[in-house]
Amino acid sequence: MEAFDAVDVIETKRDKKVLSDAQIDWVIDAYTRGVVAEEQMSALAMAVFLNGLTRPELNRWAAAMIASGERLDYSHLSRPTADKHSTGGVGDKITLPLTPLVASFGVGVPQLSGRGLGHTGGTLDKLESIPRWRAALTNDEMYAQMESLGAVICQAGAGLAPADRKLYALRDVTGTVACVPLIASSIMSKKIAEGTGALVLDVKCGSGAFMADLPRARELAQTMVGIGRDHGVTTVALITDMSTPLGLTAGNALEVREAVEVLAGGGPTDVVELTLALAREMLQAAADRIEKTGIPGAGVAPGGAEASRRAGQLRDADVAAALTNGRAMDTWDAMIKAQDGDPHADLPVARHNETLTAEADGYLTSLDALKVGVAAWRLGAGRARKEDPVQAGAGVVMHAKPGDRVTKGQPLVTLHTDEPARFDRARESLADAWTIAPDQPPATSVVLERVA
Amino acid sequence: MEAFDAVDVIETKRDKKVLSDAQIDWVIDAYTRGVVAEEQMSALAMAVFLNGLTRPELNRWAAAMIASGERLDYSHLSRPTADKHSTGGVGDKITLPLTPLVASFGVGVPQLSGRGLGHTGGTLDKLESIPRWRAALTNDEMYAQMESLGAVICQAGAGLAPADRKLYALRDVTGTVACVPLIASSIMSKKIAEGTGALVLDVKCGSGAFMADLPRARELAQTMVGIGRDHGVTTVALITDMSTPLGLTAGNALEVREAVEVLAGGGPTDVVELTLALAREMLQAAADRIEKTGIPGAGVAPGGAEASRRAGQLRDADVAAALTNGRAMDTWDAMIKAQDGDPHADLPVARHNETLTAEADGYLTSLDALKVGVAAWRLGAGRARKEDPVQAGAGVVMHAKPGDRVTKGQPLVTLHTDEPARFDRARESLADAWTIAPDQPPATSVVLERVA
Repeated sequence: MEAFDAVDVIETKRDKKVLSDAQIDWVIDAYTRGVVAEEQMSALAMAVFLNGLTRPELNRWAAAMIASGERLDYSHLSRPTADKHSTGGVGDKITLPLTPLVASFGVGVPQLSGRGLGHTGGTLDKLESIPRWRAALTNDEMYAQMESLGAVICQAGAGLAPADRKLYALRDVTGTVACVPLIASSIMSKKIAEGTGALVLDVKCGSGAFMADLPRARELAQTMVGIGRDHGVTTVALITDMSTPLGLTAGNALEVREAVEVLAGGGPTDVVELTLALAREMLQAAADRIEKTGIPGAGVAPGGAEASRRAGQLRDADVAAALTNGRAMDTWDAMIKAQDGDPHADLPVARHNETLTAEADGYLTSLDALKVGVAAWRLGAGRARKEDPVQAGAGVVMHAKPGDRVTKGQPLVTLHTDEPARFDRARESLADAWTIAPDQPPATSVVLERVA
Repeated sequence: MEAFDAVDVIETKRDKKVLSDAQIDWVIDAYTRGVVAEEQMSALAMAVFLNGLTRPELNRWAAAMIASGERLDYSHLSRPTADKHSTGGVGDKITLPLTPLVASFGVGVPQLSGRGLGHTGGTLDKLESIPRWRAALTNDEMYAQMESLGAVICQAGAGLAPADRKLYALRDVTGTVACVPLIASSIMSKKIAEGTGALVLDVKCGSGAFMADLPRARELAQTMVGIGRDHGVTTVALITDMSTPLGLTAGNALEVREAVEVLAGGGPTDVVELTLALAREMLQAAADRIEKTGIPGAGVAPGGAEASRRAGQLRDADVAAALTNGRAMDTWDAMIKAQDGDPHADLPVARHNETLTAEADGYLTSLDALKVGVAAWRLGAGRARKEDPVQAGAGVVMHAKPGDRVTKGQPLVTLHTDEPARFDRARESLADAWTIAPDQPPATSVVLERVA
């Protein structure tokens, strides 16, 4: 690989010039190897933040991040694959019912996940509230489970896009997180390295999300869909509402319980709606991968073509039925057992709880996602630093959602924690978290836009 | 001191908002103490590079850098003080004749200097070619020599603006050097911490300088003069030509020899012109400090008022005469002796030399400062890394200057080094370093503009 001077590369972007492919390849590789120092990469990240990347630069940047590590390959599987990624929200337990639901139709879902940091929870933290469930699988275990069951939720291996892991930690402390090209290339490099043939993105929009407004969420969705397409991955994005938490729970075991309710045919309407919308997109994307684009290869072995065709012919009602007839629940049980968990074990319950009540009669017109997320975090459901532990039982249970009628004194939210000293700061974070008004607000949909 | 979050401070400047005084004070102090990490400061430096600093931010930034260490104080001296700083050029030995010249009129010159890096030489490297001369003085030694002689050229102590030392090293590797607010605050924080009451800046402009064009040089000069004024230091800047080297030598002992020629009433016209112009400004600035601004205090004890008054009444001819009547040379001899050097010792001579000749008859119309500087550096006169040694005898001697008539085959430059293996790369750097044309170019002045 051609070698460059780190200062020259930084100055190129600083001076609003276009980085060459060779410069991008070199700087990402050299940073991964420690030849480009952290302080040099942070200067470059700030220059990218302020001066942007062209689309060709961005694609090459993502490609270099993918090339920094291994790339998984499901082309030998007897089923097609479709992956989902959410940009992170409060109460976002959708991966839990979604993975077995989609897998129950013969489309494999390799859901490589992370732990939570800050006010949004992590999928692994949630599943680890299930006794004995194991997040860490070897690649061989993961491939075997994909073949036998088609459903895996596990920890992403350290070998995937190591450049992204390093850069993400750096961006976190240098004010270079909220930058569309850097977010998009971070997410997409990991997802593409994870080897799926089709990818559905859930781009959250609202107070509890990274992208607080629709134009920014749309920009991020379009950028990620573009990177996916340019890397040969069938990619679709849904922009979904994160102004209020998803469902009625935010917290690890609390959310698993809610996910199981959905798999049992119940659960909150918004969680069911979003689970079905994403499942439909994933099944269609897996089908499109062969039927429309004609690309076999990555993600679809010959044996998977039939499954893809069938996935493309499913009606919405077929998919919804899998949540009520036990089909998705059976796959969930098998998936949890395959990773040593007991799907029927009692889940941990926090030792203490406190309930806050409605201060007036009327309609709940808003319930702020960020404030609820911060409360759950402060109660012990999330972590401030990577090395912190999380409480399985901690979190927030909501007793009403925006649009619901409430009466003065009725329970609105219940706070759960093992450490009562945490109640004070959690309550503080809920100041002005909701509004109650005389008139019922208009009904809203959780899916705001589709970007393909 | 109020504490902040480093990411908040970075994001403030990243988002083009104005940093508060408390944020600036905190981030500079915390960076000096290692609480703000290198990668955080480099992100902030890039944000400052791209989004700038307002004048109040810049003054506070400089003040915080000054406050990061000790501040010298000459107010107890029986003479006024005036300091000079050059932004660095090729063959710039002006400090050597200038310091004793100004001091010979009763105005003290505390010239705290550095070593060279890259293609511009360092004053200490030059003086260290004098046998036994000593750069490191304690503060007490320095004050005593200022009182007894009024002339000191020595190494700046590590206690002055430590934040600047750390930030300068960081900027060097992160593409954040060529930024007016960061350059200006770096220079001015050191100079103000050095405690002088009056300061004359020599802002170089041209190929061999940091600022290649006049508008950028002017911007830097105006910014520095503004910081000086806002910190109560009488500050004037001359913008001077650095398209071609100063004088006929670039290299340590070579330049000392030329400086001594100037002190003996000879030497190249441009070196004499610039030495006298800067001396006149320093003497006037020391006088203005009392006579016009009415500020006693820092830099001017009661006993220095008379010296200041006399300095303000000097005619140009009086100053020029000091170079021919031995007055400045006597101070030079005393200054070198005070630091254990032998002003009459033979200076080191490089073991090997090679001469390049004119390829045509005509007038030398240009002789590029940067190329000559790089050649001297590659011959061993400068260093690539801080820890490299320098050769006392290495460098370039020029036999003609732009405007001189030359004949084909006559010597143009002679390269000096102790290691003949260095000749090849030095010659390479001199490719197209000069032009010879039939018509004599118009005469130019070394001083281009004055900023006050």
